[in-house]
Amino acid sequence: MSGSTHGTLFRVTTFGESHGIGLGVTIDGCPAGLDLDVEAIQREMARRRPGQSKIVTQRQEGDLVEILSGTFEGKTTGTPIGMVIYNQDQRSKDYSHIHDKYRPSHADYTFTAKYGHRDYRGGGRSSARETAARVAAGAVAQQLLASLGIKIRSYVDQVGAIQTGKDHGALDLSLIDSNDVRCPDPAAAAEMETKILEVRKAGDTIGGVVKCVISGVPAGWGEPVFDKLHADLGKAVLSINACKGFEYGSGFAGVSLRGSEHNDAFYTDEAGNTRTRTNRSGGIQGGISNGEDIYFRAAFKPVATIITDQESINESGERVTVTGKGRHDPCVLPRAVPIVDAMAALVLADHFLRSRNNRL
Amino acid sequence: MSGSTHGTLFRVTTFGESHGIGLGVTIDGCPAGLDLDVEAIQREMARRRPGQSKIVTQRQEGDLVEILSGTFEGKTTGTPIGMVIYNQDQRSKDYSHIHDKYRPSHADYTFTAKYGHRDYRGGGRSSARETAARVAAGAVAQQLLASLGIKIRSYVDQVGAIQTGKDHGALDLSLIDSNDVRCPDPAAAAEMETKILEVRKAGDTIGGVVKCVISGVPAGWGEPVFDKLHADLGKAVLSINACKGFEYGSGFAGVSLRGSEHNDAFYTDEAGNTRTRTNRSGGIQGGISNGEDIYFRAAFKPVATIITDQESINESGERVTVTGKGRHDPCVLPRAVPIVDAMAALVLADHFLRSRNNRL
Amino acid sequence: MSGSTHGTLFRVTTFGESHGIGLGVTIDGCPAGLDLDVEAIQREMARRRPGQSKIVTQRQEGDLVEILSGTFEGKTTGTPIGMVIYNQDQRSKDYSHIHDKYRPSHADYTFTAKYGHRDYRGGGRSSARETAARVAAGAVAQQLLASLGIKIRSYVDQVGAIQTGKDHGALDLSLIDSNDVRCPDPAAAAEMETKILEVRKAGDTIGGVVKCVISGVPAGWGEPVFDKLHADLGKAVLSINACKGFEYGSGFAGVSLRGSEHNDAFYTDEAGNTRTRTNRSGGIQGGISNGEDIYFRAAFKPVATIITDQESINESGERVTVTGKGRHDPCVLPRAVPIVDAMAALVLADHFLRSRNNRL
Amino acid sequence: MSGSTHGTLFRVTTFGESHGIGLGVTIDGCPAGLDLDVEAIQREMARRRPGQSKIVTQRQEGDLVEILSGTFEGKTTGTPIGMVIYNQDQRSKDYSHIHDKYRPSHADYTFTAKYGHRDYRGGGRSSARETAARVAAGAVAQQLLASLGIKIRSYVDQVGAIQTGKDHGALDLSLIDSNDVRCPDPAAAAEMETKILEVRKAGDTIGGVVKCVISGVPAGWGEPVFDKLHADLGKAVLSINACKGFEYGSGFAGVSLRGSEHNDAFYTDEAGNTRTRTNRSGGIQGGISNGEDIYFRAAFKPVATIITDQESINESGERVTVTGKGRHDPCVLPRAVPIVDAMAALVLADHFLRSRNNRL
Repeated sequence: MSGSTHGTLFRVTTFGESHGIGLGVTIDGCPAGLDLDVEAIQREMARRRPGQSKIVTQRQEGDLVEILSGTFEGKTTGTPIGMVIYNQDQRSKDYSHIHDKYRPSHADYTFTAKYGHRDYRGGGRSSARETAARVAAGAVAQQLLASLGIKIRSYVDQVGAIQTGKDHGALDLSLIDSNDVRCPDPAAAAEMETKILEVRKAGDTIGGVVKCVISGVPAGWGEPVFDKLHADLGKAVLSINACKGFEYGSGFAGVSLRGSEHNDAFYTDEAGNTRTRTNRSGGIQGGISNGEDIYFRAAFKPVATIITDQESINESGERVTVTGKGRHDPCVLPRAVPIVDAMAALVLADHFLRSRNNRL
Repeated sequence: MSGSTHGTLFRVTTFGESHGIGLGVTIDGCPAGLDLDVEAIQREMARRRPGQSKIVTQRQEGDLVEILSGTFEGKTTGTPIGMVIYNQDQRSKDYSHIHDKYRPSHADYTFTAKYGHRDYRGGGRSSARETAARVAAGAVAQQLLASLGIKIRSYVDQVGAIQTGKDHGALDLSLIDSNDVRCPDPAAAAEMETKILEVRKAGDTIGGVVKCVISGVPAGWGEPVFDKLHADLGKAVLSINACKGFEYGSGFAGVSLRGSEHNDAFYTDEAGNTRTRTNRSGGIQGGISNGEDIYFRAAFKPVATIITDQESINESGERVTVTGKGRHDPCVLPRAVPIVDAMAALVLADHFLRSRNNRL
Repeated sequence: MSGSTHGTLFRVTTFGESHGIGLGVTIDGCPAGLDLDVEAIQREMARRRPGQSKIVTQRQEGDLVEILSGTFEGKTTGTPIGMVIYNQDQRSKDYSHIHDKYRPSHADYTFTAKYGHRDYRGGGRSSARETAARVAAGAVAQQLLASLGIKIRSYVDQVGAIQTGKDHGALDLSLIDSNDVRCPDPAAAAEMETKILEVRKAGDTIGGVVKCVISGVPAGWGEPVFDKLHADLGKAVLSINACKGFEYGSGFAGVSLRGSEHNDAFYTDEAGNTRTRTNRSGGIQGGISNGEDIYFRAAFKPVATIITDQESINESGERVTVTGKGRHDPCVLPRAVPIVDAMAALVLADHFLRSRNNRL
Repeated sequence: MSGSTHGTLFRVTTFGESHGIGLGVTIDGCPAGLDLDVEAIQREMARRRPGQSKIVTQRQEGDLVEILSGTFEGKTTGTPIGMVIYNQDQRSKDYSHIHDKYRPSHADYTFTAKYGHRDYRGGGRSSARETAARVAAGAVAQQLLASLGIKIRSYVDQVGAIQTGKDHGALDLSLIDSNDVRCPDPAAAAEMETKILEVRKAGDTIGGVVKCVISGVPAGWGEPVFDKLHADLGKAVLSINACKGFEYGSGFAGVSLRGSEHNDAFYTDEAGNTRTRTNRSGGIQGGISNGEDIYFRAAFKPVATIITDQESINESGERVTVTGKGRHDPCVLPRAVPIVDAMAALVLADHFLRSRNNRL
């Protein structure tokens, strides 16, 4: 298998390339009886769509999700939900000038090394276009989780060196979609937007960090050994194009603390719930949710496609120049937000179903 | 399932608790014909063992691996390799003073929330004791990889705020085991050791960072979508006890770079191999190895067990004081090194087997 | 998950209901570099299609397979092959007369018991319509196997009490598609056809047996324990609608033999190959192919839909009469042949890929 | 992987060979809170044990199951249950006279073809010794199912040509263990025993049929497509050594019936339950249980080891004579009964856990 299936019980399988006929995704394992809001799926697609604002790529892509199966009279039936998204434009163009060149820090070379040949018309299966299918599936998972009172909210925490510098508790997360950057700190958002436009003007790109906050997960989800909840979140998020790092709770900064500073003390709140006074654990202890907010951060590198000549080689190993053109993202962060939401939702939906067999 | 299986083709299933009769691991999928060096497995166990130096826990644990199946006349047979490790001492002690208390930042509460009850004699399945089985399996994977010319070398890059501050290329990795810290920078190692002893004297603990460098992986391993090579490495490493973050290649630091600074230019070396001039990609592009060294860093929090009174609650939600005692690690980093080696080996062995079906 | 994925390495996931928008299938794991003949896929679809002859249902169904991904310039790329088959006619009809009735020996009641509600417009996911997706995937697997010299040939061995009464070696298997029944024994085929037409006239249905012969599989495919080659074939074939039994090699008849009569003696043939003088083992010993022809038989019950009034109950448990109407198969056997071919191909393609990791 | 894992949620992984140090099994996925009766596991082992009566092999085997993990204070903890069974006698003997010979209808040749070499001291991994681990795991599954009111009762229905000739409803299944054959029809049992002793005296072996009856399974277990309940039962049973065929409900005999004769009419019983008047469906419709008794039959060939000289070849392809010796089973049926029970239990335990996610 090529690793195109995610999850064990809420099992999502995708197919599709950037320049093929279309993409698709099958969700096998969504329980029967969920009210499915098709509009809400399409709304998540719009958050990922190119051309949605002036700080993302102006490329046009079809993003209409067609549901072929798995629902009846507005509810999930328990059988696989099949969805397809046709690519808008597969006209054959002239790719002769680039078809045997390896674009730096793209997957052109590694695909050729792996498969012996590749679809040279674009990233093919390694294109971020593939994430459209993830977002469609994630939108279904988000509805499943919403029915349980769970909310997943990702936002842009950093662009280049510009950070919100604030803990998520100090931000109003309802503001995430109030600006094009998807940063709930309006002042930082404005700075970030300026930076992105400046980078774009230079034909260059820049990276950043997405933070995700998940509330409403009850204690007891996740597994104690290999499938720890944060390990599954880490894998899911690291599998997003351009993601280079993942940390949850205190993360890399926590390594400098002492145990006596780091530990989260338990207490019983007025409602009788078990809580912790601090949350350096990031809502997960021993791989299992403890009922506190789950939060993590994901690092995204600058997009590899730049509008500058770059040294490279072709498939014969000869030196060539790769010349950037086309309409690419100066900064992937605003569009990465709904993808992080989607991946977090897929992981949590899976662990929700698994948790139902914790006990007899 | 409780998530105790790792891998798809090199499939490792573990069992066992800290205070039960014993641990075990089954490797299903190791191809026939590998010369298996049993001593080498035991040597890796010794690197993880408690009591190996004065900066780790002085607790005694049995760590003798017994191989029950899957080898014949010194070679793997292709059938499952079953290994058991008996616990040395399961005498029943008096646990009444702690059996219903939730130790801060341990998995006591989350286990109870998940399973309804738990083994109160220690961490049970969430104890780091469980990683003994991983190291045994990882040692087999390392032998498989060594037969292909692959070397995995992890080391301690940071303890608390003390860092080597050097790139792995600037260090002599043959020095890793030359000191108790497992840091190949002798000056930094000495500082780290002093810090660990100081922290231990205070009854406290401290975190750090392990770096792992993998050489010899050919181009073409890894999958393009969910099972990207770095995503699988990330999950595997994040599943180790106390791990809070993972980054590969340029990682979190890379987000501030521009694409033009971050991209790795391709060239053809004198031997005719495709290479990159820099390696911010960390040896992986589009989730697939490109033949350069693979490297990543993993953050470990300070151990939760400290020798200080801590506020907590018991299973009835009543306020209690948790008093630390026993012989615990002041810093988990030196013993985390072989576990990171093991998990990296499990991931790579799996992707090696998968890569054999890349093409017809 | 709802069990809509088949295989471990050649991994096939299907979706779709009989009265929904369409069906689909994703093949994840087909290696790169296979020349894919799209016409050949469509030819297998035609062998399964309703309306192909006067002894099958005259219902019309769309069966055009559209390939959305996974191929480029006529070859498989190694990434998932996504295929969709739109249903021709999803006009809403009036189902009020049957929508809450449980048709005898259909899955109406068990679906309701499982999922709480069901798509009452037909069999939904339990309809044999679902097998269209299997045949499309199986046709790809057959091409993979054909490139290795493997041939899968199923045929109708029995309809009601009418049997060929001949061993497959005594039949000319090139005649399978020479008659509507798909029985390579012309005399038996004529009798079977007469019987099917007689049964149909009576508004009734009849069962039968499909036999499958697979040649060209080298020794060494299959696994020794749970995933024995014949066990996987058995599961795959038993998962076809209406299949009630599976036997391979000597099967049920072999139980009356003595070991001295049943054992297959080994010898070395003139070409130096290891062979057996008889083949009661059915080409599989200890779950692993031995290089002889693999053969098995599958029993199919009479189709449950009959044109006769039947006693039943409705969802409220009240007694009702179910009146048959519509255009259904009097005998599923001729159309089951390509489905058995497809399932056998899926199993073998999977074990081919697995066998590549038998040895280092 | 070598296919040594069974199940998706109640996941059982085995290891071990006939002449190695020992066998083992890990159950990952047994929910927390099951009262585990260790004696009952050992009782099932005794039903499979060699030497239990005069009609089975008189070979001695260790069959003591040691539970290493996964239980605490008499209850399952939700973490993996690890069990080992040491082989009693691994003294090195002289195997030089057979070590390169292929025993007819054994797995000697196919193992060599697959793995390149094999453990020549016996069947190795293909030995029926491996089923000891299955019985241990199945005994845990049976306890899980018993807590839900489910009973699995297999018995010998046929030995050679001697059949009970009775439907299971006409037999008193409490008599299964009242004789050495495990046939609840005392008259048939006596005849069978005489036949087995006669065959044994002749140094030969004979096959037979096991029937299994499962009561108490509620409607709604099983999956509609590939993982149909009977398909999973079929695979599990076909994976038992020497099994050549599987049929459920009306099976092969049902193919000659007409639909009007075969269909099971629904009715509502006095207690208000949905029932069927007949049960040719074998308790499963569309792959999903309907609440009636589930029943199936499994064909076992005569054991391949006979005390007679047989023609064969050695690893060099030279003609040799294989001379039988040792203490082998004249008829595997009495000992197959607990193994069929075990495999049926593993399948049902898995589908029980899966069924808990049928609906939201």
